[in-house]
This record gives sequence, structure tokens and C-alpha cells, in this order.
Amino acid sequence: MRENSFLAELREILAPGDASVKVGCGPDDCAHLEADGRRLAASTDALAEGVHFASGAHPGEVAYKSLAASVSDLAASACRARWALVSLALSREAAPGWAIRFAEGLAGAAAELEVAVVGGDTISSPGGIFVSVTVLGEPLAGGPILRRGAKPGDLLVVTGALGGSLLGRHLHPRPRSREIRLLMDFCREFTPGRFPSAGLDISDGLALDLSRLCRESGVGAELYADCLPLSPDALKAAEKSGLSPLRHALSDGEDFELLLSLPPEVWEEFRRREAGSADFTAVGKITGDGRLVLREADGRSRPLEIRGYEHQW
Amino acid sequence: MRENSFLAELREILAPGDASVKVGCGPDDCAHLEADGRRLAASTDALAEGVHFASGAHPGEVAYKSLAASVSDLAASACRARWALVSLALSREAAPGWAIRFAEGLAGAAAELEVAVVGGDTISSPGGIFVSVTVLGEPLAGGPILRRGAKPGDLLVVTGALGGSLLGRHLHPRPRSREIRLLMDFCREFTPGRFPSAGLDISDGLALDLSRLCRESGVGAELYADCLPLSPDALKAAEKSGLSPLRHALSDGEDFELLLSLPPEVWEEFRRREAGSADFTAVGKITGDGRLVLREADGRSRPLEIRGYEHQW
Repeated sequence: MRENSFLAELREILAPGDASVKVGCGPDDCAHLEADGRRLAASTDALAEGVHFASGAHPGEVAYKSLAASVSDLAASACRARWALVSLALSREAAPGWAIRFAEGLAGAAAELEVAVVGGDTISSPGGIFVSVTVLGEPLAGGPILRRGAKPGDLLVVTGALGGSLLGRHLHPRPRSREIRLLMDFCREFTPGRFPSAGLDISDGLALDLSRLCRESGVGAELYADCLPLSPDALKAAEKSGLSPLRHALSDGEDFELLLSLPPEVWEEFRRREAGSADFTAVGKITGDGRLVLREADGRSRPLEIRGYEHQW
Repeated sequence: MRENSFLAELREILAPGDASVKVGCGPDDCAHLEADGRRLAASTDALAEGVHFASGAHPGEVAYKSLAASVSDLAASACRARWALVSLALSREAAPGWAIRFAEGLAGAAAELEVAVVGGDTISSPGGIFVSVTVLGEPLAGGPILRRGAKPGDLLVVTGALGGSLLGRHLHPRPRSREIRLLMDFCREFTPGRFPSAGLDISDGLALDLSRLCRESGVGAELYADCLPLSPDALKAAEKSGLSPLRHALSDGEDFELLLSLPPEVWEEFRRREAGSADFTAVGKITGDGRLVLREADGRSRPLEIRGYEHQW
């Protein structure tokens, strides 16, 4: 059973009928709540020893990754992360040394990511280590952004450079909180009423995550092969794997880069005024025909192969 | 290492310096946050297979207990639970049947406990099953109530009847959301400005949890042995264990009953107007001398023995 189909099942069983729930269980990584006119965003990520991190991983690294994953979910929906609650299940052999180093790493991560750790639970585990982090926050002005909402004609932009994160970048991936704040602040000031129309973070590879955004928005997309910002790691990974750097940029996950769709006039204005001050690249556009297409440098198009990381049970 | 000492350690490392954090990591089970004048309560509970539930436990029961534990934390601090996020780590052998029955049980529990499940994460576990639930909510008028705040002269009251929950009640313990709402509503109407001064839920036994409330409030307490509401299960448990029913009422955990301190005039007014309509019993009073005392039926006092369930690593 694939995680996707289980989540779909859960969603059907748990479909919330509560008016305060603007966006609940899936398809978005982040829930959006509203009560008494005030909005709240919440996202949970869980990690298991032997699945998401190796048994020898540094506890501080595990703490950073678990917190960063949820902070990235909030950034992707144009929300500011503020508070975190952390569950830690720990085997008798690992505690207490592991726990202390985890807590120290968590404190450092919280400071770096500008989140306050406000609660949690610690339990003993008969097996491996398990971490679950819930991050709470608030939409930035113009937010939240969801997976649905992309419109034909919108441009697709990504932050940073893609591919090869498993060569090391995945150990300390940086959520793009600063970048999304810069973009949303820009829109509020210079293109009032016009904000990014949809977005998510590229956790399972650009192609797979783009297909999710398009499915939820009911649109298609065209990616321009020669516009994709290739990370230096994508080139190194390609040397090792024998695959192309482009293929790594399209399919490698664990990057936390953002994929956003936005009206072309917003992008033009942003490029004109903010050129060089932010790390965004246009990589394609949204189309109306529902197909996912890769346009090669020579102008020819072919269907985009949807490869990426799907968690298996 | 005992859970208590680890949490104390964590608290020191993670001491939040954020003005929005009114109550953060410990000693309370619930975090209290405030931003733009609006208040938020959040609590997390984690359960592990083989520690908090048996491998053969019904998935729906596990779902109920994990959600109820956090809802009870909010009730104990006079907050209304509204939303939940749920992490589930599941072994390949258990999924997907286990997951579906868990989700169905969770949907039922959410309806019963009046909470909307709005998000979560599902991952594969190389070992046993783990569940982590974060519940979000808002303080009732007059809330939140913390572990600190009890004053000498305050009365101690509990909900329900105590002891012997392991005979079966612990499988479906009922958070006292309705009772705390009734009491807070009463105070708002009839004793304005006077609310319960401190409280918590009795998860690890009355004696141990009372000692926690007293420590945080910097006070002592006297319990009246012949006032403790003994559950019928406390009598049955005593027959089996050879211990006294009183001892079971003082030391058995997993009950989710509430322990509250409140000004005596609030209690008098509440008893006068609401007699019989709510399930509260006065069991003792707060004292100024820092000692914990049990007063027997014959008037003699002896030190209260602090026995209860402390999670061990």
C-alpha cells in the first residue's frame, strides 16, 4: 500500500464537517484553521529510525530535520512557523544520552528556524527511535497558498537549485521561510491582490510534486528543460549514477525547495524590482490541457516522466 | 532515568524566550500561547505498542486513547479541544488493515470528543506501532488553569470516582470536558472573577498528581480519607490485590479524572446551586506548610505516601 492511497482513505474517513477547518487532512501538507476571524496553520511530520534516518545518525541532525520538515510545509503554504510540539519515543539503550543531544540539537534548530518549542511528550520505545513534530503558525498576508489554485497561464517558479541533495544537502536542508516572506511582502506592496496561486515544497522530486500540484488544481504544466536550476550536486550525482543531471533535478527529493505558480505579471514585476535579491527561477508554465510535458532545449516536447520518492509500506 | 527528570532537563534546554509563549514545555501538560490577543492551547501525547498498549489491542481503542489523553490535558487546564493532528508509524505487517481500523476508530473518537482531525503524517516503522497526537484548542472563559496557582485555604475537588481503572475503565476513559465547561460557565455567571485556581488530570494517581500540583503552586495539602469517592472498581481491585480500596483510589492512574483547587466560596455556591447536576467531590484542602497529609476518618493525620505510575526508561 502506498502512502498516497492510505492518506486518501484516511481523508475520506476523517472528512471534517467543521466550519473552522478551511483545509484539513490532505491533499495539502498543512492544515488551515480559522476561529473567531483568526487563522492558524498546522503541520505534522514523523520520522522513524531505520526509515528516515540511520541508527548512527547524530541526534541533533534528526532533531533539525524533523523540525525543518514541518517548517518547510508552512513556508510552502505561505505561512510563518511560530511554535512546535515534539514527541520522542526512545529505546532504553539510547536514553538518556541520545535524548539530551536531541534536545540540544532541537534548541539550536528552533533558534535557527525561529520557532519556539512549547511542548511535547517523551515515551519509551521497545524498538527504534521515533520522532513526531507538529509546527503551528500563521499565514503571511496574502496566504495561505494551497496545492489547488494554479491557473492556465501562470508561471512555475522554484527556489534554489535542484538535484543531488542526497550527497549531503539533505542532512541540513534549509526551509525557504525567508524567500516566501520576501515574495509575499513584495506582492502585498507592488502587486496588491495578486499573490502566488498555488505551491508546495519539493520533498519527493520536482516531477512528482508538480504532478500533485497539477492534479489538485485540475491543470497541466510544461517544464522547460534548459531552465531548470541544476544544483552542483546534481552534476556530481549524475557522474555517480550514470543518469543525467536533469533527471536528478526532476526526481531527487529531500530538498525543501519551493515550487510555486504565480500570475506572469507578478513574476515580471518581481524580476524587474527584485532581480538578484532572491533565489527564484522560472521553470515552466501552467497549461489548461491536463498534460505534464517536458520541453527540451531543441523545442521538442515529450511527456514528463513522474518519478520520485513515494514512501512504501 | 525517570520521565520527570528528563522533562526537567528538556525544559532547561528549551526554555522559551518568546513573549507569545505563556506556558511552554512543562511542568504543565498543555502549552498556552498567545498572539494578537488570541489564545491557543496545545498538548501532545505519544503511545508505543508494547508500552502503552498491547500488540493485540484493537486499533480503534488505541486511536480513542491517544486522542482522549490530549483532550483530557486541555480539559484539565479549562480549555476546549477543537482540532487534532495525528502521526502514525506502522510496521509493514500491520498495514493496511490496522491503519484503516485505526482511522475508523479515530473518526468515531473525534466525533465523540468533538474534535476535528485536520492533519497528520503516516510513516512506516521497522519495529512496533507508534502514535502521536497533538490537540489544539482554546481556553474557556476564566481559563487557562495551570498546575500553579493553588492557595492555602482553597478546597480540593475531583471529578468522578477513583481507583481500579485498570479493571477495564482505562480502555475508554472519558475526558471531563463537559464537567469543566459546566464549572467554568457556572463561575462566569455566579462567582465572576473567581475561578478554579489550579488543576490537572489524574493520569498517574491522585497522590502523585496532587504532589505535582502542590510543588508547582508552592503549597501543601490535606486529603480526607473518608471523603475520597471510591470507584466500584477500587473495591474489586482491592479484593484482588489485597491492598485497601483507599490505596487504589490514591495510587491508580489512567483515569482522566480532574483534580482542581478552588476558593471555598466558589465551591459553596456551586454546591448550593448545582447540587447533583455535576460529578464533583470535595476531597481535601490546600495548606500553607508544604506538607502532604492524609487525614484518617478518626481524625489522625499521617504523611501522604506518594505512590503512582512514573514512566521509566
